[in-house]
Amino acid sequence: MNTNRPLIIYVMGVSGVGKTTIASLLSKQLSIPYFDGDDYHSDHNIKKMAAGHPLNDEDRYHWLKNLNNLAKEYVTKNGCIIACSALKEKYRDILSDKIEKNVKWLFLNGDFELIRKRLQARKGHYMPVDLLKSQFSTLEPPVNALEVNIKNTPEEILKIVNREIFHKSEFGVAGLGVMGKSLSRNLASKGFDISIYNRYLKGVEENVAVNFKNKYPELQSAKPYQTIHDFVESLQQPRKILLMVNAGKAVDIVINELIPYLSENDTIIDGGNSHYHDTSRRIEALEKKKINYIGAGISGGEEGALYGPSIMPGGDAQAYKIISPFLESMAAKDKNGKPCCTYIGKNGSGHFTKMIHNGIEYAEMQLLAEAYHLLKSSGKNPDEIAGVFKSWKNDVPGYLLEITIDILYKKENDFWLIDKILDKAGNKGTGNWATIASAQLGVPGTMIASALFARYVSSFKETRLKMSELYSYKYSHLDIDTGELLKAYKLARIINHAQGFILLSEASENYEWNLNLSEIARIWTNGCIIRSGLMEELISILKTHENLMIHEKMIAEIKKLKKSLSLVVSESVIAGIPVPCLSEAVNFLNAYTQPNSSANLIQAQRDYFGAHTYQRTDKPEGEFYHTIWKNLSQ
Amino acid sequence: MNTNRPLIIYVMGVSGVGKTTIASLLSKQLSIPYFDGDDYHSDHNIKKMAAGHPLNDEDRYHWLKNLNNLAKEYVTKNGCIIACSALKEKYRDILSDKIEKNVKWLFLNGDFELIRKRLQARKGHYMPVDLLKSQFSTLEPPVNALEVNIKNTPEEILKIVNREIFHKSEFGVAGLGVMGKSLSRNLASKGFDISIYNRYLKGVEENVAVNFKNKYPELQSAKPYQTIHDFVESLQQPRKILLMVNAGKAVDIVINELIPYLSENDTIIDGGNSHYHDTSRRIEALEKKKINYIGAGISGGEEGALYGPSIMPGGDAQAYKIISPFLESMAAKDKNGKPCCTYIGKNGSGHFTKMIHNGIEYAEMQLLAEAYHLLKSSGKNPDEIAGVFKSWKNDVPGYLLEITIDILYKKENDFWLIDKILDKAGNKGTGNWATIASAQLGVPGTMIASALFARYVSSFKETRLKMSELYSYKYSHLDIDTGELLKAYKLARIINHAQGFILLSEASENYEWNLNLSEIARIWTNGCIIRSGLMEELISILKTHENLMIHEKMIAEIKKLKKSLSLVVSESVIAGIPVPCLSEAVNFLNAYTQPNSSANLIQAQRDYFGAHTYQRTDKPEGEFYHTIWKNLSQ
Repeated sequence: MNTNRPLIIYVMGVSGVGKTTIASLLSKQLSIPYFDGDDYHSDHNIKKMAAGHPLNDEDRYHWLKNLNNLAKEYVTKNGCIIACSALKEKYRDILSDKIEKNVKWLFLNGDFELIRKRLQARKGHYMPVDLLKSQFSTLEPPVNALEVNIKNTPEEILKIVNREIFHKSEFGVAGLGVMGKSLSRNLASKGFDISIYNRYLKGVEENVAVNFKNKYPELQSAKPYQTIHDFVESLQQPRKILLMVNAGKAVDIVINELIPYLSENDTIIDGGNSHYHDTSRRIEALEKKKINYIGAGISGGEEGALYGPSIMPGGDAQAYKIISPFLESMAAKDKNGKPCCTYIGKNGSGHFTKMIHNGIEYAEMQLLAEAYHLLKSSGKNPDEIAGVFKSWKNDVPGYLLEITIDILYKKENDFWLIDKILDKAGNKGTGNWATIASAQLGVPGTMIASALFARYVSSFKETRLKMSELYSYKYSHLDIDTGELLKAYKLARIINHAQGFILLSEASENYEWNLNLSEIARIWTNGCIIRSGLMEELISILKTHENLMIHEKMIAEIKKLKKSLSLVVSESVIAGIPVPCLSEAVNFLNAYTQPNSSANLIQAQRDYFGAHTYQRTDKPEGEFYHTIWKNLSQ
Repeated sequence: MNTNRPLIIYVMGVSGVGKTTIASLLSKQLSIPYFDGDDYHSDHNIKKMAAGHPLNDEDRYHWLKNLNNLAKEYVTKNGCIIACSALKEKYRDILSDKIEKNVKWLFLNGDFELIRKRLQARKGHYMPVDLLKSQFSTLEPPVNALEVNIKNTPEEILKIVNREIFHKSEFGVAGLGVMGKSLSRNLASKGFDISIYNRYLKGVEENVAVNFKNKYPELQSAKPYQTIHDFVESLQQPRKILLMVNAGKAVDIVINELIPYLSENDTIIDGGNSHYHDTSRRIEALEKKKINYIGAGISGGEEGALYGPSIMPGGDAQAYKIISPFLESMAAKDKNGKPCCTYIGKNGSGHFTKMIHNGIEYAEMQLLAEAYHLLKSSGKNPDEIAGVFKSWKNDVPGYLLEITIDILYKKENDFWLIDKILDKAGNKGTGNWATIASAQLGVPGTMIASALFARYVSSFKETRLKMSELYSYKYSHLDIDTGELLKAYKLARIINHAQGFILLSEASENYEWNLNLSEIARIWTNGCIIRSGLMEELISILKTHENLMIHEKMIAEIKKLKKSLSLVVSESVIAGIPVPCLSEAVNFLNAYTQPNSSANLIQAQRDYFGAHTYQRTDKPEGEFYHTIWKNLSQ
């Protein structure tokens, strides 16, 4: 038996399939107790059934709840076997409530006639045969169970159960890069039986899985593979496979390698940074083969993956249910102990949400880089800048601020390491995609865009060196007031988060995703890169206000901080220090809170040269006017 | 005869096809002279041929040039017929040089054996039959000629010529919206025989073409249609059809309607604002059917389309040659009289270039809107603002400035019309696409993006009204110095153009388009919306500097103006007036001309949380380092 945690095995199916027989045999084999669900019925229920009346859902609720409590009790011991018909999904939801991670379903199934005969032959059972038909019509076959046909003898059934539940893995991870490895260790440490797979590339990637397994004690019972077929065969049905391969073509390649070995109800989870359109496309394609596909954004980097990342899964809601025990066990926990993982919405919404997470991250990083630049321009060394940031921790707590302090303190011999790093920023696509999505959705995601473009400008290092000579660059000194800078940073972060959530809300409306912004903020409070005190605050704000800039508390805060942001931007511009992201924050705030923009002129210009027409403030909206503007006397 | 201008008809083909016979008959029928090309050979050439030696290209050059001069002479009279073998494309190029618009090619073609027999039967001809083979192997069949088989009798050939050249149109325009109508009138006024087509939509679009034709005298000989088949049948082969339908699905629909009636070598020109990827895709698809497809961006609005737009055609270079007389005749002329139309490059490069044109236009409009806003905030009324702009005309001449002055002066009864226009800016996609292309190409197109986002913010009018209440908006007064503002505007325009051309140059490299930036600037000096004095200057600058910010003259200018731009942005930010586009200009300038960015911090952060590695300034580029940054004592 390779399972690392107590299991509750529910033996389910219609009356007459032999649930108690199998449960009792299993009980002996595993040396754990078994219980007959029927023994937990109230007298009321028993009488009703004996009279030939089927139970209604209310009758059942307390019964199922009793069984659930029984199961919970045995989760703290060594597990148990419970025989119970559990015909509907909602009954099974009650039975497994809060112990999803420990529950296994054994679904005994068979032909109506065979079962009818068995029931007629039975003695001492209070179930009239007539009710069998009603049971069959009630039965919702479970999508997450080991299904065994009762044509098999009890001994054969036990053999199948033994092989499938106790000698196969519950979950597979394919792709053992930095993230795949950390997530595998994370899962194994939570007591899951896993299979791990990495491709074989002669001379480049050989025995990756087995070497990895041998390195970490928590992987003692993990099964390592380097051929797809053996990997898939090692998994319990319905199979659950987490893909951790590079976004793009590689994902399609691995999917195509997997498909021939998969069965209906198996689930693939793409845990990489795939583009949300790709994810939607893959979901649709696999749906036709009745294979589930979940696009799950995972944030937290290497460490988050190991100790608990923030996970943003999107796709079919039913499919999510099957894999949620695994993802939610892996995920970081919020301050109330709830997993930082929640079902996001249908099709590519999980990856979209992760993309916006990364977009916000781009701007958050750029804001810190601008603050760092300004503090450096005031003559401070990295230790002193770290000191300033450290003094901000109470006011604007956040993971990125924390790591920036670590970074600035880091020394190598006599010098600060930060001073030796080449100032060309890379980007992996998600900031780029977020900017594009913003343009496509008609949302002014100005801070993400400016952070992206700042990275682009940084990457032109050679051009900048040449430019700095041609333009006789002089180092700018600016005695920035650190208190004002803190306030500016604080406000710019609010604007950045406001824009990010507006993007989510616009996408939600546009794609009909029905996103829960507050829940998204909640799962972003731990495990992920943009976790922060502000994010904690947003959980309640977003419950009532999709646009956080119209929330009373935020309005007061923004009003209080605005002068500082204006001052910092203004001084930086005069000093010649680039602050694109801070500038976008103040310009957006100024544009977004003014009743009248200057776009009336733009509309007039468009009508002048292109006859695009315009609307008027003194006429109803929806009426369009065109004017011959040309003034020949000019 | 429906042609409105003198034609030169070259009757071409190998020796023995009967060129002089047909030329002489045509001459009689049309009452214009005919010339036998052979009569214009030098003695040297005649002797050489008589001796059985084929002519070389040098022998031919002077001969063809003579014929071209002869043709040019007759263009100023009533036209003429010239019989000349003209076997190669480059010979035909010499023959039609500078008179492409007036030249028609009649290509007499036939079976080798038939021609050989005719030649043997001929008397008094100095061409030995042996040379026929060499002629056949030399022949490059023309792609832009009326081809007639000499199995037809001379009378039949004349009939075909008469029908095809004198009773069919040379060019078709499909889609009679604002732009389609103006371009049709433009073509007709240049003396082209055109067919015009608009779809029939019962009760909505009925008899559009015929009604349009009847409205304008210049369309007297235009042929109007509302069925695709009749429209295509009315065109000379190879056909030339300009599509003026809305970008998107409509283009594919019309292409699919056209295809069944088209033949090899026909050319479709898409004159709408199609996305460049769509254009590349269509070119590829139609190439398989040997139909040419040209994606031609056309700028100039309604008036430009009528009197001369700027045209940016992309696609196959040979295909462009076929249609260039039409496009170049239609186009505006630059200050040297050259058409504002030039072959841009292969596949979607024409539409890409138009998209960047529009991107630059977005930012140019936004800069004017910001200047207008600032002047308004200093208490000036529209007349006074127009006065300020008028005083700028010498310094920063340009079409958009001109029309802005007209707009601001415009009054309706007692009020200025600009004050009644709803300040919600629309956008038709190209600014959006340009921003996306910028993100995809890794180019910081910050000004286009900020202009796009400014339009988006303007479109949230209701939110802004609500916001302005929540944030207790107060009208900002700012005594802006108009001299400083002019300088700021001038510099921001330079940065905008620099970014636009960097985008073109990056796309050119990325897609291997080999774009000629100077030529693109040249065709943007007239006809289009962004024509300006600055664009005139850029023609010579871009000849030597793809990045105009490294040109000496520009450097001096930018240095001189920088202080003013910084000042204006700084004051605007303090006053609370949004100036996103001006801000991006100064931030880009500051970031682009500094040797060291703050991206070293971003690289450290990425390495900290994602193990993305970084490069070092004290190590060779291409070496990547990773650090364990975490400081547990923090």
